[in-house]
Order: sequence, then C-alpha cells, then structure tokens
Amino acid sequence: MAKRRKDAGLESGAIQGQVTDQPVATTQKKTTRVALLGFGTVGSSVAHLLRRQKFAGIELIQIYNRDVARKQASERSKKLSSSIAWTENVDDVLNGDADVIIETVGGIDPMERWIKKALSAGKHVVTANKQLIAYRGVSLGKLARQHGVSLVYNAAVAGGVPVIPAVLHGLQGDRVERVAGILNGTCNFILSHMEAGADYHDVLAKAQEAGYAEADPSADVDGYDARAKLCILARTAMQVGIDPDEIETQTISRVRLVDFHYARELNCTIRQIAQVQIEEGGVRARVGPTLVPNTSPIAWSHGTQNLVMTTGEFGGDVVFSGHGAGGNPTAVAVVSDLLAVAHGSASVSLPVKQKPVTGEFLAPHYLRFVVQDKPGIVSAIAGALAKVGANIDSIVQRPGYPKDALPFVVTTEPCLTSTIESAVRAIAKMPTMLEEPLCMQMLTDEAAE
Amino acid sequence: MAKRRKDAGLESGAIQGQVTDQPVATTQKKTTRVALLGFGTVGSSVAHLLRRQKFAGIELIQIYNRDVARKQASERSKKLSSSIAWTENVDDVLNGDADVIIETVGGIDPMERWIKKALSAGKHVVTANKQLIAYRGVSLGKLARQHGVSLVYNAAVAGGVPVIPAVLHGLQGDRVERVAGILNGTCNFILSHMEAGADYHDVLAKAQEAGYAEADPSADVDGYDARAKLCILARTAMQVGIDPDEIETQTISRVRLVDFHYARELNCTIRQIAQVQIEEGGVRARVGPTLVPNTSPIAWSHGTQNLVMTTGEFGGDVVFSGHGAGGNPTAVAVVSDLLAVAHGSASVSLPVKQKPVTGEFLAPHYLRFVVQDKPGIVSAIAGALAKVGANIDSIVQRPGYPKDALPFVVTTEPCLTSTIESAVRAIAKMPTMLEEPLCMQMLTDEAAE
Repeated sequence: MAKRRKDAGLESGAIQGQVTDQPVATTQKKTTRVALLGFGTVGSSVAHLLRRQKFAGIELIQIYNRDVARKQASERSKKLSSSIAWTENVDDVLNGDADVIIETVGGIDPMERWIKKALSAGKHVVTANKQLIAYRGVSLGKLARQHGVSLVYNAAVAGGVPVIPAVLHGLQGDRVERVAGILNGTCNFILSHMEAGADYHDVLAKAQEAGYAEADPSADVDGYDARAKLCILARTAMQVGIDPDEIETQTISRVRLVDFHYARELNCTIRQIAQVQIEEGGVRARVGPTLVPNTSPIAWSHGTQNLVMTTGEFGGDVVFSGHGAGGNPTAVAVVSDLLAVAHGSASVSLPVKQKPVTGEFLAPHYLRFVVQDKPGIVSAIAGALAKVGANIDSIVQRPGYPKDALPFVVTTEPCLTSTIESAVRAIAKMPTMLEEPLCMQMLTDEAAE
Repeated sequence: MAKRRKDAGLESGAIQGQVTDQPVATTQKKTTRVALLGFGTVGSSVAHLLRRQKFAGIELIQIYNRDVARKQASERSKKLSSSIAWTENVDDVLNGDADVIIETVGGIDPMERWIKKALSAGKHVVTANKQLIAYRGVSLGKLARQHGVSLVYNAAVAGGVPVIPAVLHGLQGDRVERVAGILNGTCNFILSHMEAGADYHDVLAKAQEAGYAEADPSADVDGYDARAKLCILARTAMQVGIDPDEIETQTISRVRLVDFHYARELNCTIRQIAQVQIEEGGVRARVGPTLVPNTSPIAWSHGTQNLVMTTGEFGGDVVFSGHGAGGNPTAVAVVSDLLAVAHGSASVSLPVKQKPVTGEFLAPHYLRFVVQDKPGIVSAIAGALAKVGANIDSIVQRPGYPKDALPFVVTTEPCLTSTIESAVRAIAKMPTMLEEPLCMQMLTDEAAE
C-alpha cells in the first residue's frame, strides 16, 4: 500500500475537519477536470448543481450519453457551458482528459467494464451505482488502489443523506453492531400511503405515475434494491463483506390494508426494513416488511424519505434521515464526493472481512391469517405454534370483518425466523385457510429505540 | 497553502470513501503516538475505548491530569497499559513524543495556550472543546495550517452524532441555508420531562443529581452552550463565521407547565432550539425556547438526545440524531477524529466569511400572559399588538385556571422578533399583568418539516 494517491488537481490547505478564513481559490494549483457518464435525472442534476454552485477549481469538460442531440435539446443542457464536449462514444471519455469520471448510468454491465477502464487509465471515479458497488465494490476498490486513484460512492446509499461519509469519518471509533433502516423510497412511499388508508395497487400505480416506481416494481417491492444498499452499509459501517444474493428478502406486495389496521392495534406501523447485525453467532441480515413500534425513530420516516439507524457498542443509536432519492439530493452526494476527491480529503481505507450471512432473527413475529371462521381454528393454530415451541404473545381479532373471510392476527414471543416459518407452512395447509398466511418480523422497542 | 500536512504516522492505502479487503495493519508504516489531556468523563472514556478497540497503529503514551494518584486509583485507569506515562505537568505532554494530542479538559484558559503550544510543536490536536473552537477556532486553525498539522473538533458539537463529519464530507456539494436543532442535552432532558408533566425546578434538580446539569445551570438553560455549538455548525455547514456573543439567547427557565398545556392545544411541544439561517438580508441566529410542531422531526428528540436538521437548497432537509453527550458517545467522536488524523484522511479546508448576525426572525409568536381576569384585557392586548402591526392568529384560554391568576395565550401571525418584543414590553406594563409575559418563537410546519 505504499502507492500514493494521485493528485486529483487541487492541492488543499488540508487542515482536516477545519475551516479557514481564506478563499479556497488561493489553495488551488490546477483545475480538476470532470467528465459525466449519463445525462438522465441524476446526471443532469449534477451538471445543474455544478453550474449553479461554481466551485472554484472544478470544470465539467465532457458529457457522455446516447442520443446527444435529444439531451442537448433539454432545458438544463441549454444553460450549460458551450465548452463542454458532448459525445455518444464512451471511449472519448475513458481515453480523455478528465481527472475524475462521474458515473450516473447505473447497472453492472457495461459500467463495470467502463469503470475498470477509467480506473486503469488513472482516473478517479465517483459513482451513484449501488448494484455495481454492492456486487463489485471490493474488486473495483483493489483496482483503484493499484492505480493510485479513488473510487467513491457515497451517493449509492440513501441519496442525499450523508450516511456513508458520516460512518466513515465520524463512527470509525465505535464498533457498529447493527444497521437498520429504510433504504428504498418507493416502498416507503407505498407503505406510508397505505398507513394513511390507500390500497396497495392504487398507490403502486400512483408511484409509477409519479416516476418513483418502475413499470416492473420488483427491484423495489421485493427488496433487491434495499439489499444492495444494505451490503454497502455493512461494508462501510461494520467492515463486513456480504454477498447481496445471500441476504433473505421478503416482498411487501402481500401487505394489505388490514395489516395496517392490526399493526395500529399493536401500536406499530409497517415499513420495508433492511437490517444487518453482528452477533457472536455470526451476521444476520434481511430485507422485508416489518412491524415497527410507533415509538421508534424508524417509524418517523414518511413519503419517499430514507432513514438509517446505526447502533454502536459505545455511541449507541444514531439516526440519519432525509431524501433518499431524486435528482438534486443524489447530485449533492455525487458533487460532495467530487469535491472530496478534488481536495484530496476523505481517504479512508478499511479492512473488510467477507462473512456468511443468515436470515435468522430471534424476534417476535406477526402472523395474519384469513380463514373461514369455524370453531377450533385458534386451537389448531395454537397447536401448530406450540409444536415448534413458539409462544403466542397476543391474538387480535378486530370486529367488522365477514365471517367467511375473516382476517385475524397472532403475535408470538421472540422465536427464530426458521421456526416460525415452519409453523406457518404447516398452518397454511389447514383447510380453513383461505390464503397463504402473512408472516412479518416485529422490531421490538428495545431494538428499535 | 503549499505547506504539506505532517504525516501523523500511518501511511494509508488512501482510497477515499472505500473499503479494502486488506487489514489496516498492512498499510501501516509507524505507530501514531497519542497523549491525553484530561482524565474526566470524556478523557477516561477515550482511554477505555482505545483499550477496548485496539486500533492497529494507535498507541496511548501519556495522560495528563491534576492529582494523578486519585485518577490512577479509578477502575478504568487500572485496566490501562502500565506503559502509559501519567503526569501532572502539562509540559511533559506539550514537549513530549506524542504525534496527536487529545484535549478533553474544556474551557478557553489555559487550553488556548496549551493547544497553541502543541500545534506550534508540530502536534495534531483533537479536541472536544466547544467554547474554545467557537471563540478561537479560526485563529487556532490558522496556526495549525502554519505548522502543517490538523486541528479537529468533531466531538465539540452533538457528541456522538457525527454531524460535523457529515456536513464536511457529505453536504459540501449543497448550499446549506439553514441549520436548526437541539444542541443541549440538559435542556432537552428538562423540557421533555416537562412535556411529560414534571415541574421545571424538580426536573432541574433531578438533572443536577444525575450529573446532566451543573450546580449553576446557566450555561445550559440560558443558551450559552448551544450558542457556541451553533457557531461551529454555521462555520462548518455554511462557511459563515459568527461571533458567539452576538447570537441572541433566551433562557428556558421561564417556561412553565402551563406553556406545555397550551403548546399541546396548538399541536406543538417546546424545545430549546438553536437556529441559524442565511437570507438575502443577512444571517439570522438565535437560541431559546421555541414551539415546535409535533409533526416536525425536531419534536422527535427526547431525553438528553441531540438533533440537528440541515436544510440545503439542493438536497433539502437532512436530520441527524443521537446521543449528544456522555463519556462513551463523545469518545466515539474523539477517537473517530484521531483515526482520521492517523490515516491522513478527511482534510477539509473551507473558506469562511465573517458575518454580522441578527436575532430577528420573521415568525409566528406565542405570547403567554398571566392576568387578574377583568373585562377589557383581551381588547387591550389586541390593541397593543395592532399598534405594532402584529396580527393575532389565535387566542387560547384553557378552562380550570383561577380567575385571579389566569394564564392565557395569544399566537400571532408571522412578525419580526423586535416588533413583537416591543408590543410585549408595552403589554407588560398593563396593571392587570401579574407577571412578565412569556414570548416564544414558533417554528412553522414549513420551516420545521
């Protein structure tokens, strides 16, 4: 590791965590040249922000996108400097004069190849690409080190909420044991609207209309997006490497309004929670719809907001919340990374241990059944739970539902995920069950606050 | 600014914002030697954390405190390495072999002299000293730069909540227009207990017993502590230099239970709010008891917690919350700073513009009067408000109070602080007023959310 970082351009006064009364311009040696890959929502916001903020010593010199003519016709591009070279050939950028390449396209292929080329050509890379960093971050990081350049990706998790800079620079002294939170704005939009009474399919359609959700919403609602971000957080906050594909996920698409009604009876709401924790037994992680006590900070988050809570052995809980997506908030994270690279600040090199992960949590669980009401059902369910050693904590049945399709809820005392799931599989086979039971983990007050 | 940073010891792999799969030890050239000034709550927690975490390449070599024998007899010091040299003579440390000095004593004198000596001797300084950094941070920063060393103070604001690293590394791309929050845990402890029904004097006594509040609670309750932290936040988040003494403060000691009752009627609670905002007209800042809508994230904070909300032109609101004080959380901030210095990361050099500040806010206000109830009082108060052009938004009188000492509340539409204060001075002179009216600013939903 004797190789030194390449100078990105500015030579900074370099007084760490400290402010001066001198203009940055006086500390500047040469301009940092920047190229932008992608001029979509995030990319155009980055260009807009750079134009508006006029940071000394930063110059946007190139923009790559397909169909440049269409992009150049947009309102935002019209205001950009005419000195910026637009190109549809990515090699113009990868072999060009930029010191720093900002990647806002997303996806693993061909971005992995492009970013490898950029790093190998001695260019720093700033990226907002969560999938790429979750799956290929470690090997790309090695390549960056070999070439003495930086690869930074603070925008890849929680958009405008600076949780990665905060854990890298402000929580390294702690031993972070748990990270839990809301990492997918689309799911939070859907579930917080359902909390207010909206139907799942209606609000999903609304989210798709508003551009929050894709036509195929699977990456969001089934937890794959949050899972990638959770891996990046585990790596940066806990120095634990996890294979994203090994994280268990559960879809939010089976959550119904009736579940919010029952959650309310239990002083809870429902959110898509991504959580990872380190225990003596190993690393536990999962993503899925989860009951959250209304007293927990995690229940604070509404709309498309993101929220991350870290729990440290020494510093306790720290909560970060804000806009997890959107052009401008994500552009703030990207441009802050760019400035850090340009000023030569924020080099953090941490050891990461690759670890196996289990989706097993010892937690109370919420089970919702829809049955044709007949005597003996509760006794049969209780028997199935007793058989696996799961104790019932409460049985909740709200009035007003039809007897021939009666939803009711059983909550359990803490038991292992696999245990409760095996009981649920047995219960699902009972002839009175009208649909597959819904099983959700419940965050406890202790864990949540 | 051509002078280079002194190497604090470790040569880092220096891949910014990035983690490696290699142990830190392999990137290490020599050990960073650390000396500790002060072995009180924070100092002993720092030593404890360093002992427990065993960070590669970090060695605590000296501890300065008065009455070393007494300190050495404490449980925590008994577990420390016997190789640590204890001293009652600060010059042993200032002229010693440490690369980094950690200051946890507090206060301006003699810390300013000591830290100047340390910086001049080429030692990096990590401090948790809010008063020193608020009043002398700019000149000490200059001195540090002259000697090519770092002065870092992330522990000076909000303890274990890494808001300074987050704004320095994650929000530089934004233009932060407003910072508002709860920066004093003692006041938050008092006010959140009053919200739950406790009397001011009872809960203050309880806070003093628990060690949260000093025998003379003035620095906390009168806002001087929060004011110092607000200055540091304005400098780091907004690059605005403010003289702490110019920030208007208002004591929380005149807030009574009745104010919480009325606040509840208005769907609000009461917190000591420190806020600074930049507008075309200049910089506005103040610290004092403030009505906060229950829908605002700022109302989330309970107990001794701190909460900071930044509002950026591009990224919107970001909320940071956690333990603002206490030995271990503050030690996390100190040790994270130490690691950043040792790894040569996180050098941030920002221009700061010194600016005048006004305590004038255009905001709705809450006015609580205690009167001997007679006909004509409301009309007289309304007249005094009309005279200065302040419009009444609501008049609230809860039943159940004695007519001969009747508390009631008037809220106004947005008006300038000085305007409402002049009306309040006039109203205070009315013969039916049994005590001085209490005037508090109200955060609006728009500003708060």
